[in-house]
Amino acid sequence: MFKQITSPQNSFIKELVQLKEKSRLRKKTNTFLIEGLREISLAIKGGYEITTILADASIIYQEDFETLHRLLSSEVEIIEISNEVYKKIALRDSTEGVLAIAKSKDLSLESIQFKHKNPLILIAEAPEKPGNIGAILRTVDAAGIDAVFIANPKTDIYNPNIIRSSVGCVFTTTIATGTTSEIIYFLKSKEIKMYGAALTAAVEYQTIDFKEPSAIIVGTEATGLSDEWLNNTTQNIIIPMRGTIDSMNVSVSAAIIIFEAIRQRNV
Amino acid sequence: MFKQITSPQNSFIKELVQLKEKSRLRKKTNTFLIEGLREISLAIKGGYEITTILADASIIYQEDFETLHRLLSSEVEIIEISNEVYKKIALRDSTEGVLAIAKSKDLSLESIQFKHKNPLILIAEAPEKPGNIGAILRTVDAAGIDAVFIANPKTDIYNPNIIRSSVGCVFTTTIATGTTSEIIYFLKSKEIKMYGAALTAAVEYQTIDFKEPSAIIVGTEATGLSDEWLNNTTQNIIIPMRGTIDSMNVSVSAAIIIFEAIRQRNV
Repeated sequence: MFKQITSPQNSFIKELVQLKEKSRLRKKTNTFLIEGLREISLAIKGGYEITTILADASIIYQEDFETLHRLLSSEVEIIEISNEVYKKIALRDSTEGVLAIAKSKDLSLESIQFKHKNPLILIAEAPEKPGNIGAILRTVDAAGIDAVFIANPKTDIYNPNIIRSSVGCVFTTTIATGTTSEIIYFLKSKEIKMYGAALTAAVEYQTIDFKEPSAIIVGTEATGLSDEWLNNTTQNIIIPMRGTIDSMNVSVSAAIIIFEAIRQRNV
Repeated sequence: MFKQITSPQNSFIKELVQLKEKSRLRKKTNTFLIEGLREISLAIKGGYEITTILADASIIYQEDFETLHRLLSSEVEIIEISNEVYKKIALRDSTEGVLAIAKSKDLSLESIQFKHKNPLILIAEAPEKPGNIGAILRTVDAAGIDAVFIANPKTDIYNPNIIRSSVGCVFTTTIATGTTSEIIYFLKSKEIKMYGAALTAAVEYQTIDFKEPSAIIVGTEATGLSDEWLNNTTQNIIIPMRGTIDSMNVSVSAAIIIFEAIRQRNV
């Protein structure tokens, strides 16, 4: 038997709803919510510490939940919740009835460990839409590049919509955040070349030699990169476009440049 | 003075709400709604026939509206609507208060005219999410490729969410729809090579010579391409992935392959 919470009015449950909705509370407590069996398993695989599991009565004695349970340390508290409580906390009705409280990771630049001696990094400056951030994280995972840095973040990466739209890639990729100044300083100190995606006064991306340690930097769809980036890069680059509107999704632009870099590195 | 409609209960207005919501009505009447000054201008530029303009009282005597008005044939009916009526029809409250009724184009394969002798085509099989279709259309516009075909369409392309997420690229790109069988027959008859994005038993996309007339075919994120495609392509291709999850957005995968084809053609 597990501890049970059946009332959506329970004060702990109300606090979890706040944790879902308020990035300030996530930052203050260094915890966040994860929804869905697959996402929770990926977080465990990615080295996240889970402190509490909340599982709907309909799943807690099922095999899928048992599989998850075996991955957890014995210190993790498991709470059985009613479906009413689950619906109150969950973002999606369609998920399997399992939520986890996890501890945030240190996202500072100092904590970064690159996989390769010759790193390839993506940097997104001030991305806003969770859907775009999620798509970027999916690309970074699939490309297997070393890290993604969020410069001047507008949204914390443990926002439930980012976890959802990244299909859990927020847990499988190496992420750091910092101001644009801090990241430029970091890259210069590591002698990593900086290629900023610009709209003008730039060379075509495919002419760059990406075989050396490289960072690809993309800005927002609305305003592009800040002058601070554009003035500090090794070279600004452009994807040649020839349409009427010439407005690609930021995650699409990032992917085109990343996969060109990978293509060059594998020739 | 223009004709005025102030009541959201007006039967014509109710019909327009149906036109927004029901693809069946759009198909039956061969008409659809366009929202926003920019989108309407792009549709006119793209050769769409506008039959009626509905403009909120707050914009109808403004300069922006005058600019649009000058682009219209004198036969276009202009109706002044109340803000209440506008809100009832519009998808977004944030748009400028202008809607148009436009005639659908012939999207049959027979109507296709390629821009180049050596065409490059994207084919998306049964894409479902309007946001993905919109992102694909943005990429097709920016890449300046000859056409995009939707095989076995699940959604009509004049769905207001597709118009919106494509930022009007639905009007600037050459689109055709058909069944997978019809499109395969069409491509074979034109001797266009077919490269299907597959998950297994495929060669890496960057090893393909895309300089000949080529079609790149992508399936859904959930199930990939149908066997009918996989068994009929010239060659199936794969984007090498090395992540934990290896799940890229379909518009991202399409863009990576399209821009590799363009890179090769420009070398």
